[in-house]
Amino acid sequence: MKQETESELRQVVGDDHVLRQDEVPPPAWDTGQPFLGELVLRPGTVEEVSQVLAICNRDAIPVVPMGGVTGLVQGCATKSGDVGLSLERMNQIEEVDPLAQTLSAEAGVTLRAAQQAAEEQGLYFPVDIGARDNCMLGGNVSTNAGGTRVIRYGMMRDSILGLEAVLADGTVVSSMNRYLKNNSGYDLKQLFIGTEGTLGIVTRIIARLDVAPRSHSVGLLAVENYDHVVSLLQHARLQIGARLCGFEVMWDSFYRKATSPEGPQTSPFETRHPFYVLLEATGTDPATDADAFEAALLAAIDSGLAVDGVIANSDRERDSIWAIRHEVEWLVRDAFNFDVSLRIADAGSYVERLEQSIHSQFPEAFVAAFGHLGDNNVHLSILGGEESDVQRHVYETLSPFEGAVSAEHGIGLEKRQYLPVSRSATEIALMARLKQTLDPKGILNPGKVIDSVN
Amino acid sequence: MKQETESELRQVVGDDHVLRQDEVPPPAWDTGQPFLGELVLRPGTVEEVSQVLAICNRDAIPVVPMGGVTGLVQGCATKSGDVGLSLERMNQIEEVDPLAQTLSAEAGVTLRAAQQAAEEQGLYFPVDIGARDNCMLGGNVSTNAGGTRVIRYGMMRDSILGLEAVLADGTVVSSMNRYLKNNSGYDLKQLFIGTEGTLGIVTRIIARLDVAPRSHSVGLLAVENYDHVVSLLQHARLQIGARLCGFEVMWDSFYRKATSPEGPQTSPFETRHPFYVLLEATGTDPATDADAFEAALLAAIDSGLAVDGVIANSDRERDSIWAIRHEVEWLVRDAFNFDVSLRIADAGSYVERLEQSIHSQFPEAFVAAFGHLGDNNVHLSILGGEESDVQRHVYETLSPFEGAVSAEHGIGLEKRQYLPVSRSATEIALMARLKQTLDPKGILNPGKVIDSVN
Repeated sequence: MKQETESELRQVVGDDHVLRQDEVPPPAWDTGQPFLGELVLRPGTVEEVSQVLAICNRDAIPVVPMGGVTGLVQGCATKSGDVGLSLERMNQIEEVDPLAQTLSAEAGVTLRAAQQAAEEQGLYFPVDIGARDNCMLGGNVSTNAGGTRVIRYGMMRDSILGLEAVLADGTVVSSMNRYLKNNSGYDLKQLFIGTEGTLGIVTRIIARLDVAPRSHSVGLLAVENYDHVVSLLQHARLQIGARLCGFEVMWDSFYRKATSPEGPQTSPFETRHPFYVLLEATGTDPATDADAFEAALLAAIDSGLAVDGVIANSDRERDSIWAIRHEVEWLVRDAFNFDVSLRIADAGSYVERLEQSIHSQFPEAFVAAFGHLGDNNVHLSILGGEESDVQRHVYETLSPFEGAVSAEHGIGLEKRQYLPVSRSATEIALMARLKQTLDPKGILNPGKVIDSVN
Repeated sequence: MKQETESELRQVVGDDHVLRQDEVPPPAWDTGQPFLGELVLRPGTVEEVSQVLAICNRDAIPVVPMGGVTGLVQGCATKSGDVGLSLERMNQIEEVDPLAQTLSAEAGVTLRAAQQAAEEQGLYFPVDIGARDNCMLGGNVSTNAGGTRVIRYGMMRDSILGLEAVLADGTVVSSMNRYLKNNSGYDLKQLFIGTEGTLGIVTRIIARLDVAPRSHSVGLLAVENYDHVVSLLQHARLQIGARLCGFEVMWDSFYRKATSPEGPQTSPFETRHPFYVLLEATGTDPATDADAFEAALLAAIDSGLAVDGVIANSDRERDSIWAIRHEVEWLVRDAFNFDVSLRIADAGSYVERLEQSIHSQFPEAFVAAFGHLGDNNVHLSILGGEESDVQRHVYETLSPFEGAVSAEHGIGLEKRQYLPVSRSATEIALMARLKQTLDPKGILNPGKVIDSVN
C-alpha cells in the first residue's frame, strides 16, 4: 500500500493499534491461518471501522475481518497486501436487559463473556461452541455459528434480533432491532449473518437470551444399529419434548478411538456397540425433569431401542460423558475434517458408503463419524489418504444424497470449490449479484465463499 | 397491455386460468383490496410463473402476487394495468416427513391445510394466525407471518428451512434446503421472507415442524397494574419455561367492550380490572404439565401479581377464554387498526400516553389495546377520530420509544409513509439497492414496502 494510505489508516485507529505482519501474535487456536497480510488494524469504534473501510475501498485494498480466528475453513486466511481488521478492542457488553431478555454488545466480545454476562442476570445465551473462550460474537454472527444446542435453540441466526454492520464503502447500517416481532421493512441483518464478512463487517449485535435452565440431564445410550438410532431420536422428541437440547451420535469408529487405552477418555460400557447416543435435556422444573429424563431413557432400553445406558448423577459425570464427544483435539489435529448435512434417515448409509469408497483407495485410512444428528449434521474426521482424494470421496459420496458441504463451519476459502456440490449455478450467480451490489470493488474478505468479483 | 402480450400470457397459463377484472371473485376476507388491475393469471407450475414474469418484465408490466389476500396493510393492492398473479392453483402438499419433521408444499397451500397435513402425521405446524383458512403459505412466508405462538416458536421465518422463488426476470431460484444446519454459502431464502413479494415470488417452501403437543393449558388472570403484568411475564417464563406458548395482554378498554352486555363474549370475572392476561402452555407430559401450569398461576395469585384467575378445564372452556381475545371482528371492522412493537417495559406508558394524545383531539374516541406482549407486540384499535390524525398520534407517540411501526402485519402500501419512523434513511436506501438489484424494472408488487424504483 502507498505510504500515504498507511499514514491515513494509522491516523484513523492510532499508531498503537496498528500491527505490522511480524508484530501480529499467532491466534490462540491454531487453525492454520497465520497473518500473511500487510497490517492489522484494531479500530476502537464503529466510526473508525467506517473510516478504515472508506479508505480501503477508495484504494481497492482487500480487508479481512478478524475476530478470534477460530474458524475451521480458512475464513480469515490472508495474503500479501491484505489489511486485517481486528474487532478485538470493540469488546464492550453494552446491556443485558433481564425483562426484554436481550444482550447488546460490540462484535469483539467473546462468546464466553457474553454467556457469563447472561448468566449473571439469571439468563442463558443459547449458542455454545467449543471455541467459546476465543471466538467473538461478530464472528459467530458472520459465520452463523452452530454447536450442540441447535436442536433446541437454533443457530446463531435465530438468536440475533438486530445488528450494526459497516458496508465496504464505509456506510454504517444500524439495524439494532430488539423486538421478537418486527416486520417494518426488509430484515437487513440477514445480509450479514452467515455471509462470512463478504458483504459487510458486523460491529454490534442484539441477541435474544433465554431463561437459565434449572435442571440439566445427560445420558449415554448404546445402540445396535442405525435404524434404532433414528427411532431413538423420535422417541426422545416425544418423551423429552421441548427440553431436548442435545442428541449427539458417535459411530463406533469414533467412540472406540476416543475411549481406547491410548485414547483420552474412558467408556462406561464393558462391551462395544455400533453406535452411541448422548442425550441432553435442560428445563425449569428440577422436581420432575430428572425423573422424566430417566423414564425416557429406561423406556428406550425396555423397548429395545438401546441395549445399555448410563445417566450422569453429578456435574463431574456430565462432564465426563460430554468429554468423550467434545474433546476431539486428539483426532481433528491430524485428520482431514468435514462437516456435512444430510437427511437423518440417510446419514447411516452415507457413512457406510463413504467408508467403502475411502477404503477402496486407502485401505488403511481411518474414518471417524460423529455429530449433531438431530440437526442433520455429521462431522467426519479421516486419518490417512491424500487430502484431495479424501475430499473427492467425501463430496462425491455426498452428492447423490443431496447433502450440504457445510453444516456449520461455513465455506471460507477451503470449501469454495465444493460449493457447487450443494448450491446451483443460479444460486451462486445470485450470491455474486449480492456481492457485486454491496461490495462492487470486492474488498471485503475477497475469495471467501464465492469467487472474487474482480 | 398490448393485445399480443395478453395472448402470450394466455398461452402460458391457459385461457381457463386467466380472469378479467370483472371475473375476479372478491377475496374471502374483506381486507379492502378488490382487484383493480387488468388480468389475474393463475399459473399451475413454477415454469408458468417463470414465463409469466419473463414476459411482464420484458414489457415492464407490474405484477402483484396474490395468495389469500388476507393481509391488513394493502400488500395486495392493485391499480389499473396491473397483472395479478394468483398462486391458488399451486396447492399441492408434496411431502410431510415425520422423521425429518419437515413439510414441503407449493405456495398456494392454505395455512390450515398445512396444519392439518402436519397433524395427520402427529406433527405440528408452528405458525398460526386468524386467517388460517384462507391465507396461503407463500403469503405467510413473504409477509413473515406472526400470530400468537411467536413467544415459543418464532415467526414464519424461523420455521422456513428452504424455498423456491422466481425473480422478476423469470429466473427460478431453488433453495430448497431441508436441514437445520446448513452454512453452505449465503442463505438466499432470507431475500424472499418478509419482503412482501417485492424481490421475488415464493412458489414452494420447506417448513420445519414440531412434535404435536399432548398437553394444553389455558388460563386467564386479572391484574391490577402494568408493573404486575410485567412481573407476571417474568414469573411465567420461569415457572412454565419452554412450555409457555402464549402471553396475551388485554387492557381493560378492550376487555370491557369485548365482554359488555352488547359485546360478543362473557367475562368469567365478576368485577373489572385494569389488565387481563391470557396464558397458554403446551407440552408433552400430560401427567404433570397441567399441575405445573395450575401451580404457576396459583403462585402468581398467592404472590399478589394477579388478583383473580380461571383455568380452562375443557376444550370448550379453552375456546371461550381465547374467544375474548381472538374474536375481534366486532372491533377491527370499524376501527383504525395498528400493530406496533416496543419494549415490554414501555408498552404500559405508551398506551397511556397515546390515549391522552388521542383524547386531547378526539375526546370521544375509544382506544382499545391488546396483544402478544411477550413478543413486544401491541395491537391498537381506535374507534372515532380522523384517520390521518389518528395515525399521527399513534406514530408520534411511538417515536420516542423507538418502537416499530409494524410488528407482524408488514408495511404494504398502507404503512409505507411511516416506515421512516422505525428505519433510518441508510436502511431504506439499502432496501432500495436490493430492490434495484433484484428487480431493476420495478415490476414486482410495485410501491409496496418502499417507493417504486421507477
